[in-house]
Amino acid sequence: MRISEIAKNFHGKVVNLKEDLDIKSVGSLENARKGDITFLANRKFLKKALDTQASAIITKEPINIDIPQIIVDKPDYVFYKLIDLLYPEKDSRAFVSDKVVIGKDVEIGEDVYIGDYVVIEDNVKIGNRTRIYPFSYIGKDTQIGEDTIIYPHVTIYGSAEIGNRVIIHSGVVISSDGFGYYQEKGKHKKIKHIGKVVIQDDVEIGANTTIDRAMIEKTVIGKGTKIDNLVMVAHNCQIGENSIIVGQVGMAGSCKIGNNVILAGQVGLADHITIGDNVIVTGKAGVMKDLPSNGVYGGTIPAIEWSKWKRILTYIMKLPELIKKLGR
Amino acid sequence: MRISEIAKNFHGKVVNLKEDLDIKSVGSLENARKGDITFLANRKFLKKALDTQASAIITKEPINIDIPQIIVDKPDYVFYKLIDLLYPEKDSRAFVSDKVVIGKDVEIGEDVYIGDYVVIEDNVKIGNRTRIYPFSYIGKDTQIGEDTIIYPHVTIYGSAEIGNRVIIHSGVVISSDGFGYYQEKGKHKKIKHIGKVVIQDDVEIGANTTIDRAMIEKTVIGKGTKIDNLVMVAHNCQIGENSIIVGQVGMAGSCKIGNNVILAGQVGLADHITIGDNVIVTGKAGVMKDLPSNGVYGGTIPAIEWSKWKRILTYIMKLPELIKKLGR
Amino acid sequence: MRISEIAKNFHGKVVNLKEDLDIKSVGSLENARKGDITFLANRKFLKKALDTQASAIITKEPINIDIPQIIVDKPDYVFYKLIDLLYPEKDSRAFVSDKVVIGKDVEIGEDVYIGDYVVIEDNVKIGNRTRIYPFSYIGKDTQIGEDTIIYPHVTIYGSAEIGNRVIIHSGVVISSDGFGYYQEKGKHKKIKHIGKVVIQDDVEIGANTTIDRAMIEKTVIGKGTKIDNLVMVAHNCQIGENSIIVGQVGMAGSCKIGNNVILAGQVGLADHITIGDNVIVTGKAGVMKDLPSNGVYGGTIPAIEWSKWKRILTYIMKLPELIKKLGR
Repeated sequence: MRISEIAKNFHGKVVNLKEDLDIKSVGSLENARKGDITFLANRKFLKKALDTQASAIITKEPINIDIPQIIVDKPDYVFYKLIDLLYPEKDSRAFVSDKVVIGKDVEIGEDVYIGDYVVIEDNVKIGNRTRIYPFSYIGKDTQIGEDTIIYPHVTIYGSAEIGNRVIIHSGVVISSDGFGYYQEKGKHKKIKHIGKVVIQDDVEIGANTTIDRAMIEKTVIGKGTKIDNLVMVAHNCQIGENSIIVGQVGMAGSCKIGNNVILAGQVGLADHITIGDNVIVTGKAGVMKDLPSNGVYGGTIPAIEWSKWKRILTYIMKLPELIKKLGR
Repeated sequence: MRISEIAKNFHGKVVNLKEDLDIKSVGSLENARKGDITFLANRKFLKKALDTQASAIITKEPINIDIPQIIVDKPDYVFYKLIDLLYPEKDSRAFVSDKVVIGKDVEIGEDVYIGDYVVIEDNVKIGNRTRIYPFSYIGKDTQIGEDTIIYPHVTIYGSAEIGNRVIIHSGVVISSDGFGYYQEKGKHKKIKHIGKVVIQDDVEIGANTTIDRAMIEKTVIGKGTKIDNLVMVAHNCQIGENSIIVGQVGMAGSCKIGNNVILAGQVGLADHITIGDNVIVTGKAGVMKDLPSNGVYGGTIPAIEWSKWKRILTYIMKLPELIKKLGR
Repeated sequence: MRISEIAKNFHGKVVNLKEDLDIKSVGSLENARKGDITFLANRKFLKKALDTQASAIITKEPINIDIPQIIVDKPDYVFYKLIDLLYPEKDSRAFVSDKVVIGKDVEIGEDVYIGDYVVIEDNVKIGNRTRIYPFSYIGKDTQIGEDTIIYPHVTIYGSAEIGNRVIIHSGVVISSDGFGYYQEKGKHKKIKHIGKVVIQDDVEIGANTTIDRAMIEKTVIGKGTKIDNLVMVAHNCQIGENSIIVGQVGMAGSCKIGNNVILAGQVGLADHITIGDNVIVTGKAGVMKDLPSNGVYGGTIPAIEWSKWKRILTYIMKLPELIKKLGR
């Protein structure tokens, strides 16, 4: 794709275009080489940009460097879209391996890919163009929508409804039993989990994340929500739409999380916590009480309003000096 | 099962029984529908109970609603037992797939289920009625008891003793090498781990949890202990009986945990920590010192007596105001 | 191996050698039995040493017990080396199972072991003496060096360069997509990840750890670095050489970690954090800012200089008393 084509495609203006090179690849400011295009998204990286070896740069404002510059409003956005253009998905062959084990009453759509050593139990439905990679296990009574990707080594115990355009990464476990026991004669007795898991359209679930089935009824991951690696979603949790759950977050049973929520890395939620819409919880915080919509919360345990925590933290960091000063 | 039968079965009294309906399923207060039975375990959910669409309710005291009510002492307990009755385990077929690879000197008990694509290495013993689901790997020198369930994608490296009625969920890794190195010429050299893992009867291990083998001797999970998802049990840890280890807990090497202990979500233990019996550690706390029996500990790092921490926390939360006030 | 041979082999002096027994195995001070050798690495365990039932002990100084003692400078080091001698790796057979699926343009070195139900996609190169255990998935365009071990159930999506003498434990996921999205019309759109993962020589990666591929360019684990279980390494992270990343550590995208760093258990790093060489971060700390070389950092969030944190912590723990005292 020539520089002028890229610019045209993204409605950008070209500056410094001496030679309309063919762009072969993308690179970072530091590592891009001849033939690569790079981008400057933030003026704090200007120095790196001035030293780049790239053959072209996508930038918001022209910079003082003698290579072709594509001027656009959102250089990072254009860069990401450009990657999609330069690296189209190659692997779209339809294929069902003869090493797949398929149970009874299984419906498989058109143009599906099912790799080697996949096991599909009874009463499963797989939508058109869905791709299931080797060693994945699809338990009984599972419906999978269209254009969904299930990477190698995913386990779905069964009783799951998985939407369209869902991406499930390797090592994910879905519909495992929730962690629930009742007491009988001083022993923990297993509460039977008969509920299911519903994963709505456009959800992505990161590697080695676990999503337990509901005790009764359902655990739900809402439309467009993205979950990172090694996250634990316990039984009966309900996560809204378009939320972001970052790596190693853990939520105990029956939490309700709204839409457009961000839970940063390693956040923990006690059981039965409700979090409203548009809430951000900063990394590592422990949420012990419900959080209303439209706020930023953080700290340690318990998570509190972020602005309040920042103020407390200032005092904590100066505590020895403050106490001494007051002592005098 | 008719309402009257349920009541009789659990020694409950029936109130409001106009029509002795056949109960088909169970439901929560909010989502139960006609034909379902629900339960009220806590008066704080009374309002929801009064609005329920269920056909019957299990409750401790009669409530002001015009549906049949089964009066019992522990409504939640009865509800869980009822699920067991209404949803008996269906899948108990004995079966050994022809896609199983079985090594030398393997003993397999009666009425065992071994699904497709299971690999069993040499010198393994599998007890009666044990079920091993697809893609599980049973390394050499492993003994598995009776009525144990190993879900898909479990890895047992070998040198493991697994008891009766144990449940191991998908993605669990057992007997992996502990994280131990010695220094030689400024490099980390691997300490060879020749120990084993012992998992006693009635243990349950959640999805994607890892239990490392001992450096020498054994890592032990005691009888009746329940471990949640994504937990890390390091080499040579010894967990007592009937304990509860909640999701994403991590324990470093050689920890000793007593009986009837509860480690809440995301708790971390330094190495060589000893925790007595009947101890509770609250979520996310970091245990840096031994904890004697019969206490509640919590906070951040280090975990301290919970009552003491609550008091400190009150002061932390008011720190800016307190300091200002004292300053005046 | 006789006691005298062990002593000679490690240049130790023997004390109390009445009978030059054949040592069959190793044991801890508490659990060693007749025929075992044990070691005393730390005087605080002297009492246990005096009670040991072992047939010999490795110790720095002679102790008051009537069994043969091998006197060496570093008893623990000698003990670990001795394990290597007493328990040589038995399983070194070369073998390629007929249940392996191998793609196009795959090069396999000499004396390789590839277990049952392994899938190797196109354009993969596997070095001499490398061992790949059952159910591992090697995605396309992957190079694996010599003498590397890949345990069961490892997933490598592809585009990975793995060095020599690398050990990858079960459940590890390599080259999964990083967690990156851009916004379009209020939705999270996936940023295509086209980068790769480079794992240099002598790295070990613990069970169920995830290492995401770079968005562009590469995620790197440096030579000799050891990573424990359930760790998350996000896209574009670069970890230096000889570092130690303990269980359940999580690092967000584009972190740079130096050489000889130790990140203790459950530490979390925000994105784009740079940590210098020879840094220690204590357990559970949250690193929110770059950390220069040669320091010890810790606490909660944010991680600060450990010595400073210890001082603050002392005040926090006495806060109620201090405030009361000042109030009077």
